Amino acid sequence: MLDQLNQHRTIRKYTVQTIAPELLDQLLETACRASNTGNMQTYSVIVTTDESIKKQLSPAHFNQSMIVDAPVVLTFCADFNRFTKWCEQRQADPGYDNFQSFMATAIDALIAAQTFCIAAESAGLGICYLGTTTYNAREIIDALQLPHLVVPVTTITVGYADIIPEQTDRLPLGAIVHRETYHDFTPTDINTFYLEKENSRFYKDFIAENNKETLAQVFTDIRYARKNNEFFSEKFLQVLKEQGFLK
Amino acid sequence: MLDQLNQHRTIRKYTVQTIAPELLDQLLETACRASNTGNMQTYSVIVTTDESIKKQLSPAHFNQSMIVDAPVVLTFCADFNRFTKWCEQRQADPGYDNFQSFMATAIDALIAAQTFCIAAESAGLGICYLGTTTYNAREIIDALQLPHLVVPVTTITVGYADIIPEQTDRLPLGAIVHRETYHDFTPTDINTFYLEKENSRFYKDFIAENNKETLAQVFTDIRYARKNNEFFSEKFLQVLKEQGFLK
Repeated sequence: MLDQLNQHRTIRKYTVQTIAPELLDQLLETACRASNTGNMQTYSVIVTTDESIKKQLSPAHFNQSMIVDAPVVLTFCADFNRFTKWCEQRQADPGYDNFQSFMATAIDALIAAQTFCIAAESAGLGICYLGTTTYNAREIIDALQLPHLVVPVTTITVGYADIIPEQTDRLPLGAIVHRETYHDFTPTDINTFYLEKENSRFYKDFIAENNKETLAQVFTDIRYARKNNEFFSEKFLQVLKEQGFLK
Repeated sequence: MLDQLNQHRTIRKYTVQTIAPELLDQLLETACRASNTGNMQTYSVIVTTDESIKKQLSPAHFNQSMIVDAPVVLTFCADFNRFTKWCEQRQADPGYDNFQSFMATAIDALIAAQTFCIAAESAGLGICYLGTTTYNAREIIDALQLPHLVVPVTTITVGYADIIPEQTDRLPLGAIVHRETYHDFTPTDINTFYLEKENSRFYKDFIAENNKETLAQVFTDIRYARKNNEFFSEKFLQVLKEQGFLK
C-alpha cells in the first residue's frame, strides 16, 4: 500500500480503454467510506462520460486535453443542497447557507476525492487533478447544472495510462513538517530546502525555456501570477455568493 | 487496498503505545507524494506530541479527548508562507495573499491529509479527523505559532486503536453520484435515499436520546445549528483576513 502511494504519478495521457461501470461504481462506493463531517455526506460527484458534456466542460478547464481524452471526468462538489432539502422535508430548519458550512462540505468532498484516487490507482487506473475547477466554477456550474448550495471544488480525470511520466521531485520533509509548533524559515533555511530543486538540470532547463532568471519567477510571472490569482479570487467569491454560501 | 479503504473506521480511543518516529516520518513522506498544485507543495503539517502543547490545543477542539489521549496530533495547514519567502529571496513577486491561493493550498493540504490517513491505516494505525479546526482556527494559530499566510484546515489524531467501533452507515450511492449532469432531488427521491437511515434502530434511539421528532432536527437544532454555523463563519472569515488570504 505504501509502495503504491509512494509510486504516485499524475496521468495526463490515457488509452481509449473505457472504465467498466461496475468498477467505477465500486470505486465511488469506496470513496464514500472515507471520513466525513457528522456523517452528513454533504458532497456530490458528477460522473461525466458523454462527449458533448465533456466538450462543454473543456473551456472551463482551459481546454486541457485530459477532459476530452479521459474516459471519465469526475467533478467533486461541496453540496448542502440534498441535506437542506432533507431537513426542509423533516420539519427542521437548515442553517447551511454560510461559509463555515462551505468549508465543512468542501473538506469532505476533497477527502472523498483523494480516497477515490487512491482506490482508482489500486485498480490500475491513472488520475489527474484539475486545479482549474475553482477558477472557473461558474462555467462548470452552468455545464453541469449545479443548483443552489452546490459548488465544484475539484475535478479528476480518470482512465488507463497511455504514458506514465517520471515521478516529480519533492522538497525535503523538513520544508513541510514542523515539530510541536511552527518554526518559521530563515533565509538560510529557504536556501537549504530549495537547493536540490534549484540545482536540478530539469528546473534549469525549465527556467531557460521560460526566459526567466529564477525558478520562482516562472511561478510568479507565468504560472500563478498575482493578477490572475486576484481575478479568480473575486470570481470564486462571487460564485460562493451566488450559490448561497457567502453573504 | 480496496478492502482496507472499505473497512475504514474513525478511531477515537487509543492505547498508550507511541508511534515510532521513523514510521511517522515515513508516513509523512508518503503523504507528500500526493498530487499538489503546480508541485509548489504549499502546505505544512505541525506534528504535536508534547503534552503541554496538546493541552493548549485542546480547548480549540472543544476538549475532545482525542487531542490529549492520542500520541500524535497533526495539524494540516494551508501555507503560502514558505513559498512566498522563497519568491522574495529569488527576485520574484509573490501574489498569493488572496482567496484563490487559499483555496489551492487548502485543497493540497487536504489531499495530503487524506493520503496520510490511508498510509497510516495501512500501517495499523487509527485516525480521527477533527472538524473543529476551522471553527477555532484563531486559537490553533496562537497555540502553534502559525505565521502570516498559514491557516489550519484540518486536524488528525493518530495512534493505535484501543476501541474499534462499528462501521457507520452510508447513504445509497445514488444520493451522492449524479450521471453526466446534476439531477436535483424530488421529495420522493429524498424519502427513498434516507429511508434505510431513518428506519434504523440506531437512529431511532439517537432521535429519542436527543428529544427530537426527526433525525434532521438533531442536526439542525443540536449538532450543526444555524446560529453556530453563522458565528463560526464570521470567525473563520476574520482569520482568513488576519492571516492575509482575504481583503
